[in-house]
Amino acid sequence: MEKYALFGKMMAQPGKREELLTLLTQAAQLVATAPGCHHYIVYKDAQHPDWIWVSEIWDSVEDHDNSLQIEGCRELIMQAMPLLAGKPEKIELAVVGGKGIS
Amino acid sequence: MEKYALFGKMMAQPGKREELLTLLTQAAQLVATAPGCHHYIVYKDAQHPDWIWVSEIWDSVEDHDNSLQIEGCRELIMQAMPLLAGKPEKIELAVVGGKGIS
Repeated sequence: MEKYALFGKMMAQPGKREELLTLLTQAAQLVATAPGCHHYIVYKDAQHPDWIWVSEIWDSVEDHDNSLQIEGCRELIMQAMPLLAGKPEKIELAVVGGKGIS
Repeated sequence: MEKYALFGKMMAQPGKREELLTLLTQAAQLVATAPGCHHYIVYKDAQHPDWIWVSEIWDSVEDHDNSLQIEGCRELIMQAMPLLAGKPEKIELAVVGGKGIS
């Protein structure tokens, strides 16, 4: 079955990107051992000083959705909300192949 | 040093996505062993039937740029050009951390 993937974009309030990055790397640690999680990688946008991207790869969209229920995840989301400038955006994908994913 | 990353978006001519995906997975095989290449993953966009995304992670932007000179890569780019509807877009990034990248 094709793996589910997404690119998520978050725009931090001005000057809040580092704080938001800290929360996201904590989230990455929480979901790293979740069933079906292959990737959860956090990036800084090189052009936009307040933007953050995440790339996720999961066995299925259900595995991704379940991860939002992991203990600690909801708390991180609540902490992240006031740091965001606007609603996060996501690009939903299916993995075709390549290097870096088995 | 922070790793260089990018998300690339390509829009195929209507009905040409599968053909373009074949070329991109060939490109992934070519660059897989290039110096500094950690990821080169090819995706189908779930919402747009003609769109393809690639996520790449490299030790440096120089390693990425050098990969375009690999034998066979230029040929694949030439084959891909007529399959594209418009110019590819890229989002340049720096890796912060997470699961799936060492």
